[in-house]
Amino acid sequence: MKIHPLFEKRRIFAPGPTPVPEEILSELGRSPLHHRTKAFITILERVKKNLQFLFQTKQPAYLFAASGTGAMEATVVNLFSPGDEVLVIDGGKFGERWVSIGQAFGLKVQSLKVEWGKAVEPSAVLKALQANRAFRGVLFQASETSTAVVHPTREIADIVRKNHDALVVVDAITALGVEDLPMDAWGLDAVISGSQKALMLPPGLAFLALSERAQKKRSQSGIPAFYYDLKHEDEAAHDGETAWTPAVGLIQALDLVLQRFVTTGLAPVFQHHARLAEGTRRGIRAMGLELAAQGAYSNAVTAVKVPSSIPEGSKVVSYLRDRFAITVAGGQDSWKGKVFRLAHLGYFDEIDMLSLLSAVELTLKKLGAPIELGRGVGAATQYFAENEF
Amino acid sequence: MKIHPLFEKRRIFAPGPTPVPEEILSELGRSPLHHRTKAFITILERVKKNLQFLFQTKQPAYLFAASGTGAMEATVVNLFSPGDEVLVIDGGKFGERWVSIGQAFGLKVQSLKVEWGKAVEPSAVLKALQANRAFRGVLFQASETSTAVVHPTREIADIVRKNHDALVVVDAITALGVEDLPMDAWGLDAVISGSQKALMLPPGLAFLALSERAQKKRSQSGIPAFYYDLKHEDEAAHDGETAWTPAVGLIQALDLVLQRFVTTGLAPVFQHHARLAEGTRRGIRAMGLELAAQGAYSNAVTAVKVPSSIPEGSKVVSYLRDRFAITVAGGQDSWKGKVFRLAHLGYFDEIDMLSLLSAVELTLKKLGAPIELGRGVGAATQYFAENEF
Repeated sequence: MKIHPLFEKRRIFAPGPTPVPEEILSELGRSPLHHRTKAFITILERVKKNLQFLFQTKQPAYLFAASGTGAMEATVVNLFSPGDEVLVIDGGKFGERWVSIGQAFGLKVQSLKVEWGKAVEPSAVLKALQANRAFRGVLFQASETSTAVVHPTREIADIVRKNHDALVVVDAITALGVEDLPMDAWGLDAVISGSQKALMLPPGLAFLALSERAQKKRSQSGIPAFYYDLKHEDEAAHDGETAWTPAVGLIQALDLVLQRFVTTGLAPVFQHHARLAEGTRRGIRAMGLELAAQGAYSNAVTAVKVPSSIPEGSKVVSYLRDRFAITVAGGQDSWKGKVFRLAHLGYFDEIDMLSLLSAVELTLKKLGAPIELGRGVGAATQYFAENEF
Repeated sequence: MKIHPLFEKRRIFAPGPTPVPEEILSELGRSPLHHRTKAFITILERVKKNLQFLFQTKQPAYLFAASGTGAMEATVVNLFSPGDEVLVIDGGKFGERWVSIGQAFGLKVQSLKVEWGKAVEPSAVLKALQANRAFRGVLFQASETSTAVVHPTREIADIVRKNHDALVVVDAITALGVEDLPMDAWGLDAVISGSQKALMLPPGLAFLALSERAQKKRSQSGIPAFYYDLKHEDEAAHDGETAWTPAVGLIQALDLVLQRFVTTGLAPVFQHHARLAEGTRRGIRAMGLELAAQGAYSNAVTAVKVPSSIPEGSKVVSYLRDRFAITVAGGQDSWKGKVFRLAHLGYFDEIDMLSLLSAVELTLKKLGAPIELGRGVGAATQYFAENEF
């Protein structure tokens, strides 16, 4: 059965881009302001202040017209120099990205390999740091999107702080606004995120906040840079402006989103994500499926092993797409065809997750898995009913 | 638990207005054309042609900037005269509306009362017509939205045609584009609908198609009228225009919707609605609930009896609204607080209906009904899995 084109309703359950609320879409549908106007400068000022609230920091936050990878690069080119040794915790596709970026700019990258699906052991980080006193940075993901695992950010930061003066560099692209990551309180030196995740916006904006300690190390960087050289941003910031043309429309929309975060506070946002994630995991388990992550579950995304009854695992993603116009993510690299990933970060509620579980049940059943229809969604419903807050 | 304002997602499951597809919302977000321009006249021409396709008629269709009630009034003031006797099949709130409109314009209205929740018996129509040869019209609802019942349009039309020369006047506001109502083939004389139902648009447009027979009776009407006097529309139509300022933006959007109907054909649209409706009914029954309609189920909306375990029945509607931002309809008049109504006409798919059933389960459970969570949605999922087309 094909989707009837009249009734096709596209639903995105990928770990970014995530759905955009209607009011935000309306804002995005308005003409962009000019970026050298008072109207925009007022917005930018508020956005920067509210980003500090979101990052839980007193330090300034930078915005880039870029994807999250751009802000990862900005971090590397501003904080490190060619030949600097850095430790990358590499437990997935995005751990690998830190390795690639570091290498592209001449850093000496040591990978601390972590089996896909597992979080790094804090003791392994300690061991690596004790073995090499030269590390200038420890780079990792707060939430490794490819495996749906959270690394223990707080513990890692503690270990670095107590044993080493390396910078703690956190890719929080799918963690900011999902998991509690108080930057100042935990002593994180660089925290990176993007617009198309928990912030409910289209892609195109990346964010970076740097600790005082990181700010001081900036001048030592010997990597050539221009677009991402923060000194240009600092200069422009004296006039409340940005160095290059900012993504004005996205920033106007971000302003609305951030105001909502400020109004509602962060704690209920983290609770909300934890609840949706746990309900989703319960639903998946009740279907008789296995989670691909081995504990340390991300509240941004859930990775599910394709059951052995479905030999061509990539069909789960394509059937959801072709039959229900639902976008979920497949597995990457060695998990390709073996895993599918369901996102619950950003503009989702429990009704969304229940509808996704229904669609997953229908899909798996259709593809030959021994699914008892209604069982997974029932377990998730039960969890949501029992866990109001 | 309240909805977190950041994640509130409004979902409308009322029998109108119904959800509007994103592409149509975009069209509605564009500047309206001027109505005396070639660009608009071309659109209007195509819209009128495609309305004929939708009404399954060779006769012209009229558009009004009005709600459906406006087109009901237009029908009465153009086809009847003060003192004319008409028979109204009154089995719900909208049957009553025919009575009120008829009386407002001086018709002698005879009500054929039908118990709420039941469809009229064709034999009762025949009996009424045989008892009074003076009836100039038989007015009824193809789908009585208040009770979620369909009256037997074809049988009623047959009886009138074979026994009487009264006009067959059909309020198809929630039936057009949902149930198969071939106007010419069944000999319907007036068929009425509105934009905010199966046509997936905001309210503001009403439609009326008249048979040749009805067109001929128009000149006999002795009811004073201006806005709804079709002679003004006929005159303007010579130049491809409308008599009064049309709801240009809505008509531009209607153009897109109707083109989709034409491209996909009507049969799959009727099938789609029948499938969603049956899945919904199965889900409701599997929850242990009773349907309020006694057979002759509408495929536009399902009316459900509030279980006796929930003494304050109106709370079902208010809890769905306050806790999940879901709008469903309550019962009207004598059904107030005793019934809630779930719509499945227009821009819905099975994932929508499953998510609604999940929300209904959570709501009823919360309000104290002995609901086994997952059972209703499971039964509906089962039905959808077994009934692909």
